[in-house]
Amino acid sequence: MKAQSGRANIVRTATRLFRRRGYEGVGLNEIVEVSGSPKGSLYHYFPQGKTQIGAAAVVSGGAAATAVLKGLLQTMGPAAAVEHYGAMLAKGMEQSGFRDGCPVATIVLETAPQTPEIAEAGKVVFDDWRKVFSEALRKAGVEDSRAASLAILAVAALEGALILARVDRNGAVIERAASEVARTFRVATHR
Amino acid sequence: MKAQSGRANIVRTATRLFRRRGYEGVGLNEIVEVSGSPKGSLYHYFPQGKTQIGAAAVVSGGAAATAVLKGLLQTMGPAAAVEHYGAMLAKGMEQSGFRDGCPVATIVLETAPQTPEIAEAGKVVFDDWRKVFSEALRKAGVEDSRAASLAILAVAALEGALILARVDRNGAVIERAASEVARTFRVATHR
Repeated sequence: MKAQSGRANIVRTATRLFRRRGYEGVGLNEIVEVSGSPKGSLYHYFPQGKTQIGAAAVVSGGAAATAVLKGLLQTMGPAAAVEHYGAMLAKGMEQSGFRDGCPVATIVLETAPQTPEIAEAGKVVFDDWRKVFSEALRKAGVEDSRAASLAILAVAALEGALILARVDRNGAVIERAASEVARTFRVATHR
Repeated sequence: MKAQSGRANIVRTATRLFRRRGYEGVGLNEIVEVSGSPKGSLYHYFPQGKTQIGAAAVVSGGAAATAVLKGLLQTMGPAAAVEHYGAMLAKGMEQSGFRDGCPVATIVLETAPQTPEIAEAGKVVFDDWRKVFSEALRKAGVEDSRAASLAILAVAALEGALILARVDRNGAVIERAASEVARTFRVATHR
């Protein structure tokens, strides 16, 4: 239990730092200091060092988003879910002073494809998000290939909108992108 | 003429390195070495150092994309243009071994909003791209506010798809996102 939370604490701290200032801009010493973990504990949980922490941050940030998306899609249709999710992302960006974007995007842009462990973790996460959307769209009557394309559109538009919001210092851009995706979902599902 | 090309050479090299490995992961010494410029020339053109080079890379990468987009939109409608542009981006990613993504996205994610010079340069670039799309959509008969939303969708989806392509090691994801955006454009312009 203790061991678990020690690892989780390091990953949580690293994810927060990476999403704000990027993967390369954050050193291991800063992760140790901000997390309040002993240095030995970092090497104990992550013997392969920073690459392993980067991959863990991608997996952890990705899983958190997957869980939220799945929760939304259990209680509403895909169009309403993408709008709700866009509003949540916009609020999160605003509350963090437009610093807490997607940790996966930042880490992946700096390291993929040259760092295979991180690229692979990113692929699993993006595939998960695409699957969550495409399954919901198929359940709403969209045929397989179109559902997969619409899922790509949703994930790509939300990821891109998080970047635009950062320089706009305004979450509205995320809500507008999400609203256009939702409109496309509604047309495709005839709702 | 010589002075111009010296500066341009540094910016071109920095842009290529940043888009591949991120802003923080590339040092001034590497930019000097790879560009073959004398170190004094870097400090001559960029007295404010790396931040100034980062902002120049954002402006330069942004302007190149704006020019291509404008060129496409002069010869075809917005839906065909976004499909063509998506195919070009996919081809560029494939040819670079999935390393040459958008330099603006990478630099901005690592530095905005905390580095105002770079955040401001990113804002100008993203605003330009949005304007190029929204003007073309307005000309095709879409009303102002909807044209602005569709322009956000296009820029966000292309930016996000470039990230997905990096971990997919496949440009198809960009073409599929662009094709969905084009379909939405066609519905909105009744074509």
